Amino acid sequence: MYRLSGGAILWQHHPGLPAATFLAMPAEPAPAARPVAAARRRRLRADRARQLADLLRHQILAGGVPGGVLPLEDVIAADYRASRNTVRQALDLLRGERIVERQPGVGTVVVCEKYPHGLDRLQGLAETLREHGRVTNEVRTVGPVSAPGPVAHRLGLPEHADVLCVERLRRLDGLPLSLDLSYLPMDIGGELLGCDLENTDVFRLLEQLTGGPLGHAEITLEAVNADAHSAAVLQAPRGAAVLMLERLTRLPDGRPVDLEFIRFRGDRITMSGVLHRSL
Amino acid sequence: MYRLSGGAILWQHHPGLPAATFLAMPAEPAPAARPVAAARRRRLRADRARQLADLLRHQILAGGVPGGVLPLEDVIAADYRASRNTVRQALDLLRGERIVERQPGVGTVVVCEKYPHGLDRLQGLAETLREHGRVTNEVRTVGPVSAPGPVAHRLGLPEHADVLCVERLRRLDGLPLSLDLSYLPMDIGGELLGCDLENTDVFRLLEQLTGGPLGHAEITLEAVNADAHSAAVLQAPRGAAVLMLERLTRLPDGRPVDLEFIRFRGDRITMSGVLHRSL
Repeated sequence: MYRLSGGAILWQHHPGLPAATFLAMPAEPAPAARPVAAARRRRLRADRARQLADLLRHQILAGGVPGGVLPLEDVIAADYRASRNTVRQALDLLRGERIVERQPGVGTVVVCEKYPHGLDRLQGLAETLREHGRVTNEVRTVGPVSAPGPVAHRLGLPEHADVLCVERLRRLDGLPLSLDLSYLPMDIGGELLGCDLENTDVFRLLEQLTGGPLGHAEITLEAVNADAHSAAVLQAPRGAAVLMLERLTRLPDGRPVDLEFIRFRGDRITMSGVLHRSL
Repeated sequence: MYRLSGGAILWQHHPGLPAATFLAMPAEPAPAARPVAAARRRRLRADRARQLADLLRHQILAGGVPGGVLPLEDVIAADYRASRNTVRQALDLLRGERIVERQPGVGTVVVCEKYPHGLDRLQGLAETLREHGRVTNEVRTVGPVSAPGPVAHRLGLPEHADVLCVERLRRLDGLPLSLDLSYLPMDIGGELLGCDLENTDVFRLLEQLTGGPLGHAEITLEAVNADAHSAAVLQAPRGAAVLMLERLTRLPDGRPVDLEFIRFRGDRITMSGVLHRSL
């Protein structure tokens, strides 16, 4: 065992030794192996807890907790070959993320359900969550506005041209999922004013209006902390992590038709897809 | 003008009227148009500030602020046809996200640079950020561990089989970007122990070891708040929004070789790609 320059421990691989020679959770030093600084021990403990929390988070979100109640700490400790302290700390992290809660007399229960939004195809929210429930939209703002420079530019319009601005709070079976702001060119967007925006994806409406499928979209994803107002609208705590999607959708001929800024509640949405090494 | 059931204002589109009849920023009521509750006015002001902040954020991150100093509030107000109060509130939001700072005698300056991570192809960090600087990796943990059930399952290994666990803090030109935890099957992972993990993407090393390109990866993206320990490692504030990437990478024959849990600092990384409507 020796240290790398960054201070990490390297366990050399000894192919002749059985697995049990190595340690169950990464970076777990053998008891009293050698004196280490208290700060270093704390760091290793925190690392192990986070690493275990990542595994438990995946198991929970993948539906791998039957009945929604986690096993007892002892059982988790045995399954993951971790100490009870590590398990307790890992569960604290998941509680902090509002993924689990401790319920007296029941144990640690899963309280968060995350819904998978596809990243492989351009899809509206109702479409991508079809199997998970019914999407409804509270239309908070809708109407023409004079496009600020950057909006006009991205939509390929002259500055201060009219665009339709639509803001919707979107819910799945009544649960707030996202706050979406869209800007659309007025010639197409104006037609949306008579449509059922409360129950229909804008993508579907656009395809009905243009008579064919949409083309493609350039997207950017970021993680941001919710400002107080967005948090209140989304019924999330202030500062809650939000998955922010900026999406510019185009018709098959390349013409931009929908510039969106979407804030997804981080505790309710994941984005999943497949990436290939070669294009 | 009438209200939708959700309380939103709808401006009917009057094709005969010039754009100036409509309002520059969405949902800006004409002064004293009618008595509205104070709470409703606050909500509209907050909406406008957030909508403007989204536009400014995009402009800043797209490099649209020459010299890194924003125009005076009056100029922004004129450009975006917003009130000075709205501009001030929008800049407050961006300051809260640590995107801009107010510097006495200089003005509002851009203090955050976000780097674009490709979402179209399976790429390592050094590869995808090649044009932006040099990626170095502080190896915090490396060594064989007994794979917990879910890790073994996803890597297609028997439970408690040995896997290589590698944790790296990754920096771009010295700036912490991400904390990456990888689990690799020991037959391939073991070979990494002799490699230059501090300066080379694991993807590149895997391709050198296997003699050919990787295949594809299943990915999941989430926004989470950083726990205290991850935040400290990433040198970010506690609770900072983190873009969490889980990625299972496979060889061209489908065999899983690398299960990763990656925390990207939300204020330094965006993920960008193109989605198509038809597959």
